Amino acid sequence: MTVPNIDQVCVNTIRVLSADTVQKANSGHPGAPMGMAPAAYALWMRAMRHNPADPQWINRDRFVLSAGHASALEYVLLHLFGYGLTMDDLKQFRQWGSLTPGHPEYRHTVGVEVTTGPLGQGIANAVGFAIAEARLADQFNRPGFPVVDHMTYALCGDGCMMEGIASEAASLAGTLALGKLVVLYDDNEISIEGDTDIAFREDVGARFEAYGWQVLRVEDGNDAGQIGRALEDAKREAARPTLIIAPTLIGFGSPKQGKASAHGEPLGGESVAATKAALGMPAGDFEVLPEALAHFDAFRAKAEREQREWKELFARYAIAHPELAKEWAVWFDEAPPVDLALQSDLWAFEGKAATRNSSGEVLNRLTKYVPNLIGGSADLAPSNKSAMKGAGDFSAENRGGANLHFGVREHAMSAIANGIAVHGGLRAYAATFFVFSDYMKNGMRMSALMKAPVTYVLTHDSIGVGEDGPTHQPIEHLDGLRAMPDLLVFRPADSREVTAGWVTALTRGLPTCLVLTRQDLPLYERSGPDALRGGYILSDSKAKTPQALLMASGSEVEQMVRAQALLWEKGVDARVISMPCMELFAAQDAEYRERVMPGAVRARVAMEAATACTWHQYVGLDGAVIGIGHYGASAPAAKLFEEFGLTAERAANETLRVLGKR
Amino acid sequence: MTVPNIDQVCVNTIRVLSADTVQKANSGHPGAPMGMAPAAYALWMRAMRHNPADPQWINRDRFVLSAGHASALEYVLLHLFGYGLTMDDLKQFRQWGSLTPGHPEYRHTVGVEVTTGPLGQGIANAVGFAIAEARLADQFNRPGFPVVDHMTYALCGDGCMMEGIASEAASLAGTLALGKLVVLYDDNEISIEGDTDIAFREDVGARFEAYGWQVLRVEDGNDAGQIGRALEDAKREAARPTLIIAPTLIGFGSPKQGKASAHGEPLGGESVAATKAALGMPAGDFEVLPEALAHFDAFRAKAEREQREWKELFARYAIAHPELAKEWAVWFDEAPPVDLALQSDLWAFEGKAATRNSSGEVLNRLTKYVPNLIGGSADLAPSNKSAMKGAGDFSAENRGGANLHFGVREHAMSAIANGIAVHGGLRAYAATFFVFSDYMKNGMRMSALMKAPVTYVLTHDSIGVGEDGPTHQPIEHLDGLRAMPDLLVFRPADSREVTAGWVTALTRGLPTCLVLTRQDLPLYERSGPDALRGGYILSDSKAKTPQALLMASGSEVEQMVRAQALLWEKGVDARVISMPCMELFAAQDAEYRERVMPGAVRARVAMEAATACTWHQYVGLDGAVIGIGHYGASAPAAKLFEEFGLTAERAANETLRVLGKR
Repeated sequence: MTVPNIDQVCVNTIRVLSADTVQKANSGHPGAPMGMAPAAYALWMRAMRHNPADPQWINRDRFVLSAGHASALEYVLLHLFGYGLTMDDLKQFRQWGSLTPGHPEYRHTVGVEVTTGPLGQGIANAVGFAIAEARLADQFNRPGFPVVDHMTYALCGDGCMMEGIASEAASLAGTLALGKLVVLYDDNEISIEGDTDIAFREDVGARFEAYGWQVLRVEDGNDAGQIGRALEDAKREAARPTLIIAPTLIGFGSPKQGKASAHGEPLGGESVAATKAALGMPAGDFEVLPEALAHFDAFRAKAEREQREWKELFARYAIAHPELAKEWAVWFDEAPPVDLALQSDLWAFEGKAATRNSSGEVLNRLTKYVPNLIGGSADLAPSNKSAMKGAGDFSAENRGGANLHFGVREHAMSAIANGIAVHGGLRAYAATFFVFSDYMKNGMRMSALMKAPVTYVLTHDSIGVGEDGPTHQPIEHLDGLRAMPDLLVFRPADSREVTAGWVTALTRGLPTCLVLTRQDLPLYERSGPDALRGGYILSDSKAKTPQALLMASGSEVEQMVRAQALLWEKGVDARVISMPCMELFAAQDAEYRERVMPGAVRARVAMEAATACTWHQYVGLDGAVIGIGHYGASAPAAKLFEEFGLTAERAANETLRVLGKR
Repeated sequence: MTVPNIDQVCVNTIRVLSADTVQKANSGHPGAPMGMAPAAYALWMRAMRHNPADPQWINRDRFVLSAGHASALEYVLLHLFGYGLTMDDLKQFRQWGSLTPGHPEYRHTVGVEVTTGPLGQGIANAVGFAIAEARLADQFNRPGFPVVDHMTYALCGDGCMMEGIASEAASLAGTLALGKLVVLYDDNEISIEGDTDIAFREDVGARFEAYGWQVLRVEDGNDAGQIGRALEDAKREAARPTLIIAPTLIGFGSPKQGKASAHGEPLGGESVAATKAALGMPAGDFEVLPEALAHFDAFRAKAEREQREWKELFARYAIAHPELAKEWAVWFDEAPPVDLALQSDLWAFEGKAATRNSSGEVLNRLTKYVPNLIGGSADLAPSNKSAMKGAGDFSAENRGGANLHFGVREHAMSAIANGIAVHGGLRAYAATFFVFSDYMKNGMRMSALMKAPVTYVLTHDSIGVGEDGPTHQPIEHLDGLRAMPDLLVFRPADSREVTAGWVTALTRGLPTCLVLTRQDLPLYERSGPDALRGGYILSDSKAKTPQALLMASGSEVEQMVRAQALLWEKGVDARVISMPCMELFAAQDAEYRERVMPGAVRARVAMEAATACTWHQYVGLDGAVIGIGHYGASAPAAKLFEEFGLTAERAANETLRVLGKR
């Protein structure tokens, strides 16, 4: 019997610790960690430059576990490599309050770069990391000073490969020639419903070659050495992203090896024991051989040395290029360099404008204050007004550009923006038609879950779209996105409210949707920084206490201002509340909210060119909500507002009805 | 000068009529119709078997304009081929009430097979058509009687090709060897932001070959003859779907030919005139040459003859196989063959059960009554309980199976289900975890827009998911989907309400979401067919008029029933309303709604393990809504309900507070 080498011992340590972790929780996915252990080990021990002592090291290689259900693998790695996750943390896997939740969570567990679990998105996050690296390298590197120079690695399974978002992201990565991106594909031929053959017979390698990737096929994915050599080949290829296809066995070493039953449930005590015996590992729960511990310890010394070298490089860089070092500090600061709300030029507008146009204007004015904006549209930039003039296009040939062309790929766009946002150093935005936020809904949810401050520029926000018709007219989207926790939905009523929306997006540390019109809107005298509070009195009643409250967001504010005048003629003294952002209004103190919306005033009417369900919380059973309970239609916008009854006259009549005056 | 042949005259007729149509509306997309005219003509005039006199002919070839923004093309075809769309209809393009809206709308314009516009989905719809054809052919065809035998064609552009959903659908189509599916790719190298090169450098043909498709490359996509020959080759290939790549020029014949500016706005009067001159067409608006008219007329005679032959075939079939002809009538009837609500075995349950399990049970009982169910899951069938036992798997090798394996491809799944549902002859369902409804949100929206009665089986419906954590726990999804018009969201509280959900799904002619638990729920004495009304009294107050209303859906009904008992002990006589489906409740008459929810009772408390925004419409300003305003966590389910305060005790306390009793 040959003595297994230390690498094999370490790989098997990862396997059995993963199995123990899932078994202890009596919940989770043992199969993928056991199959991917050699790849993970080759990556973390050899290929990847990272320092467990400083998980925030800006120039670290990035790791994305796109197959997030294999979380036990990542936790075991974080434990063994010394990121501070303890054996007790592993024993608390999937329990209330633990550092080891069911799927890896960014901001929750030190060393986790991005939240994963919804399949395919990790590949797009990784593309975002690679874009960020390329852009920042172009911005900051100088001859002899490669201060930004890191790889991005993603580990994914068959599920990720089947998801459309992976195709979108991979096609764009090929187009952009992201040579520092490497995806490891755990090709275990098993999915939950059985052999992948039942739904997935494509040639994945040929597909990625069609995208312009380098594709490396490892003979045996259970051999860390082979994967290590492929990783070295991947690093040498600068002009193309690399896909490494590693055929593996799900649940490697266990009696359930190669079976779907190894995927999503604990192996069972007997199987765990059999696995340890088969792999020649000690039988105890959570027992790690001393030689394995020593080997992981030795890695940390090497890692510290590598980061020290980078720090020395950066120190010399700061002397040689002090202005760049200063700029670096600005770019890597989460707060903008000035108080944006105080910059008067951002608020200066005249006359009516479509809020999409105002947004384009504000975006371009912002570039003066916020140098690290990067973003673009899913092929709708001329309509979304989302291009930064003079900032250049980011492309395979030009890493200095700040305008991204995502192509018609909304879902990947959102997840790429998430990757850029959590990478650090850049502020990402993503634009499309509001209705197509549907295509990226889970990407937006991941922004919110991670508190990744991506700005979503969502134009053509209602039936105001007009002729394109119901497929292009959002109806239910405001309500749907307002329901999403930790996402700010900001729908401005005029140009100055657009500024408030952008300031919110860049300063609140949360993903923010700017929901913008295609059509012109007026400019209100009273609009401005008050809009930063989410809701405010745009046009007050003559008396201190109004008889009725008229509430709206965006384009419907105009109707409410007109309704106020109509009501005054009928002897009703109403107040108009503009509510661009319900989440911000809800976050104001009770006194402010009572001042704007006095509890005693029960005659309340809200209008929104949408389903408007969310307004019931402010209107109650005695008021009226004027919305649209059906899909739109293809016709000029003004005609639709009239036909669907979104008019000042109707608002006035509803108010009179609520007051018992008709 | 050579005299142009009649085919070229017809192609140019389509081009200039499309340009006129867009110009008259002063809105729309002229470029794609002009570029795709040769492909469309070759398809409609030569390859496709269709009869304008009977657009409902079951065995017609199906046509999907996946690039829905090219709607003018489809309307011009429908006009010229004689589907009843008049020249006046073309002149009303994109106007209020017209038959020619901005994007093609199913059920609105005769001859439109499916609503398109949101890119990529048409390819998946076409995959659905092809699956339906294969399944029905297996079911009904007999030697000498190919009563189901039609092709499915889709026309798509670069945008469709970039969308992830197209990749998902194409990969599955290759796996399933859908030989009667043909996709024509209008490869014009132009996107809205400019050359496709900026975002899309992949080799599309190689990618489709990797999926297992036959790929045919036409040299000149502006030549209808070349496309026609490729279509014949495509028809001859039975074992693989075919992609025809046709290099074209956007806005062919116009001064803006080959430019992004030809895409999404009218050419302008001068350019239209120049186009007509360049193409040798008459200068008049909406003028069609008599020889072109005569040529389209001649097509109709041929088409009538073809359908007559099929009708004769079917008449002989009905004599040779009377039992199959009878079955055919059942399958192609939109109503189920029996009144499902009256089948007592569907309502027979005992004891507690997870509603996902009850759903699996009901689904399997339903197969006895509803023979044409077809569906499956995005690789979660064992968790979704969505398999029909003994019904076989639909695959490349077995067209008789009714269980579909969609792979991890939610978006394509929804759009494929839409294609199956609007094809006729089958009832489609699609299953995944509720949280991943996000991935297919726009596909679900298209179900609703089209009133395509797809059943969405959405399990693991709340924090009840437990250990998988926040990425897998829906929070905002109930509110988001309830906001969607014409979609029924049904969240049962017990097994009999599950039956009500399935009966609703199969009888209301609308897409329906069944939102189901992972965890066990009790069985209530009073549950049953009343649930078909959406909301009903599950446990009444002792007095005729209750002091308080306790409302909930799904798993939270259990807490409300317990809260009712707690309140009785405190001297409060409350009523519990189970509300599995708000849309159905809203559709009841006012008298019923008042009976269940008396307007005078203002002490109202609702509970839902979700954001619960939609409950404010029933609760008002004076009641209380107990929901979850943040994301979930990874822990056992019972722990989460307790930590997040979704308990009977809290509901009772809130009720007392609302009543001013504490």
